[in-house]
Amino acid sequence: MAKVAPRTLSGFMELAPRDQMKMERMMAILRESYSLFGFTPLDTPVIESAEVLLAKGGGETEKQIYRFQKGDSDLALRFDLTVPLAKYVAAHYAELSFPFKRYQIGKVYRGERAQRGRFREFYQADIDVIGDGKLDILNEAEIPAVIYNTFTRLGLHKFKIRVNNRKILNGFYAMNGMSEKAGEIMRTVDKLDKIGPLKVKELLINEVKMLPDKSENVLDFMAIQGDNAYVLSRLEDYRGMDETFDQGLDELITVTKYLKDFGVPEENFAIDLTIARGLDYYTGTVYETIMTEHPEIGSVCSGGRYDNLAEYYTDKQLPGVGISIGLTRLFYVLNEQKLLSEEIITAPCDALVLPMTEEVGPAVAAATVLRQGGVRTQLYGEKRKFKAKIGYADKIGVPYVVLLGEDEIAAGEVSVKDMQSGEQQRMKPEEAAAFIRESVEKRNSGAVIRE
Amino acid sequence: MAKVAPRTLSGFMELAPRDQMKMERMMAILRESYSLFGFTPLDTPVIESAEVLLAKGGGETEKQIYRFQKGDSDLALRFDLTVPLAKYVAAHYAELSFPFKRYQIGKVYRGERAQRGRFREFYQADIDVIGDGKLDILNEAEIPAVIYNTFTRLGLHKFKIRVNNRKILNGFYAMNGMSEKAGEIMRTVDKLDKIGPLKVKELLINEVKMLPDKSENVLDFMAIQGDNAYVLSRLEDYRGMDETFDQGLDELITVTKYLKDFGVPEENFAIDLTIARGLDYYTGTVYETIMTEHPEIGSVCSGGRYDNLAEYYTDKQLPGVGISIGLTRLFYVLNEQKLLSEEIITAPCDALVLPMTEEVGPAVAAATVLRQGGVRTQLYGEKRKFKAKIGYADKIGVPYVVLLGEDEIAAGEVSVKDMQSGEQQRMKPEEAAAFIRESVEKRNSGAVIRE
Repeated sequence: MAKVAPRTLSGFMELAPRDQMKMERMMAILRESYSLFGFTPLDTPVIESAEVLLAKGGGETEKQIYRFQKGDSDLALRFDLTVPLAKYVAAHYAELSFPFKRYQIGKVYRGERAQRGRFREFYQADIDVIGDGKLDILNEAEIPAVIYNTFTRLGLHKFKIRVNNRKILNGFYAMNGMSEKAGEIMRTVDKLDKIGPLKVKELLINEVKMLPDKSENVLDFMAIQGDNAYVLSRLEDYRGMDETFDQGLDELITVTKYLKDFGVPEENFAIDLTIARGLDYYTGTVYETIMTEHPEIGSVCSGGRYDNLAEYYTDKQLPGVGISIGLTRLFYVLNEQKLLSEEIITAPCDALVLPMTEEVGPAVAAATVLRQGGVRTQLYGEKRKFKAKIGYADKIGVPYVVLLGEDEIAAGEVSVKDMQSGEQQRMKPEEAAAFIRESVEKRNSGAVIRE
Repeated sequence: MAKVAPRTLSGFMELAPRDQMKMERMMAILRESYSLFGFTPLDTPVIESAEVLLAKGGGETEKQIYRFQKGDSDLALRFDLTVPLAKYVAAHYAELSFPFKRYQIGKVYRGERAQRGRFREFYQADIDVIGDGKLDILNEAEIPAVIYNTFTRLGLHKFKIRVNNRKILNGFYAMNGMSEKAGEIMRTVDKLDKIGPLKVKELLINEVKMLPDKSENVLDFMAIQGDNAYVLSRLEDYRGMDETFDQGLDELITVTKYLKDFGVPEENFAIDLTIARGLDYYTGTVYETIMTEHPEIGSVCSGGRYDNLAEYYTDKQLPGVGISIGLTRLFYVLNEQKLLSEEIITAPCDALVLPMTEEVGPAVAAATVLRQGGVRTQLYGEKRKFKAKIGYADKIGVPYVVLLGEDEIAAGEVSVKDMQSGEQQRMKPEEAAAFIRESVEKRNSGAVIRE
């Protein structure tokens, strides 16, 4: 028969089993961490009506979208989880309780030009809190706690949550009479990390057409750095000149004030006035998170406060605050950087039961006891030589092999072989279950990310 | 602004938060149960090249498929998880160890005519064991144990795993000289449950054009019913007449023999000679699972043994055995039948922390302690009247409210209100964490399905 080459599309991540185990571990931790903060899981369709998905319309996204006809329907694959959330909240408004806190971990689709480390199908892991009409600043203060908890549970410690407030930026530009050019300025300032203050100043003068002293003002403002108390005290110097600025400063003070009560160490948090994020969407606190030893990766968790989640679908004002982790990209980068732990067990099972006799009943019964004891157990049924069986155990990287030969069966016992140390012990199947489960829990107690 | 109606496409399940929690619970149990049997999780793309996905070609499926162009690429959404598995195993053959045991829980797409209880996007939850060249019958014997474990963990007890062997059927038709008509006969016999033996006999004679005595033979054979020992003894009467039959009988004996060692009670298992399953794919043991008090639902978990997983992609012979649960449909039916437990907690959190003072620091700190103690905690930050706050607690169905007024703060304590009993107690935040976690574990220890 003529064969079709079994290829996977480029830009689509398809992991080997042991990598997939690490990915599953990361997802489990995200679910757990998001749940601890009272976010409820949602699952919206991958396909939506194109009209719904593109209600906002235009922009770069529209070119990348997977859009197609099926029968009479104009359909599209979701390109993020925010638009489906907006649709969900607008559609189910009457059934929901506000503040509505949901998380969603799901695949989204963007037909970008394929290139290394860029994906066309990728997971986003989002949380959002949506208010009905209004939403207290405390929700914005809580977000760094969610990020901190999630990342430390994953095993990351060398990261910094960079926080700013769009009202401070807007207020600052207003008090300097630069409101009209605020967008352009922010896009230029965004390049500070990459090209440095001198080049940014040049651009502000030559491209944005600012007067030199005004561009100096901007750079002075952006250069305010230090610990939170210091930055806030410097910002106080600007108080009283613009109402929006003052409101933003108050919000930033509140967000910073509760850090300790939220259990977020100061070293993982920094007020950073250069952070702006999506220009026409966010209206208050904005967040970026960088791995301090890998700044080249860029932000691994970003988001912010917005005033109008679902304005394309409803007249209700639905303000919210949310963050998103680009999980597929994060996994890819961590894997590339060899930052994923090789310690945790990535075998399909914790114990491989090898029957050594013709009659396999006792081996089956032993496997059942192990499973009842919570041990992930494979029963090896193939009739092959011992060497081939042990070779399989080696290849899948199983931590324990459980052998049942005639002696073991006669004694109602099993032999448990530790595949790392090579040690072998005889015990009752129930004991083997407890022994293996305990050892496996210890090995799995380490984090999935190792810095 | 003109609004777009926020609608979800018909045939696409989108659950309310509390239903979604039940669905998540079911998925978590499936993952856990499949893992216990040594299946490793896989995640393949939703989009594949149409050429790859339709390698087998033709048939009903092709009409239902979501297929579209993106740039020069002819793409399609997966319509099951078996074809992507075949592709995966063929593509990654060299990296895999055989037997290769994988599970996958993922969405698949079929553009069926929309109708109540039929979905165009739905979850399948599959397991498969793939051998390289050959695969021992013990793997077929293990499948009922996986089904039994999975269903009992979900809370189902009144179900029966119906098992047959295609070799027995093929052998039986061969020994009766009916091999040519075997397909047609099986399709007709498949209607036994619905139309009864008399109507089936009529069809066999009038439509399949069988002689009356031959159709009688078929019905006699299909009527063999009773406990496993009885059915097997009746099948022994046919031994020696056809090699394939004898082989199938031996396999069925093996599958039945180890049931007890696998921990599967006889009442949940029945040899059923009327089961045939997919006609041109399965070659050995076949499985169907029915809920005994809801036979109208049909099979909720089906599958079988096949000889050639990936023949369209590779010359390697890759036999396997697998089963699939149509999770979305199962969830839908259970929900409709009110079989999903209302006991387990479906609120977004276990504790809702309500600050009762202007200064919210102590409430924030208490929420942090609860979370560190493993309690899913929402911090209510909105500045509203007490009645509105408690109303929110009621509406989300949270089991515990944790209050921090001036008295509690002064004493370094919190008040924990049990929302079911109305009882309220003062304690330290750490004690509250332990108290709530324990009570929540108890409430959640029940099964998600209640028969």
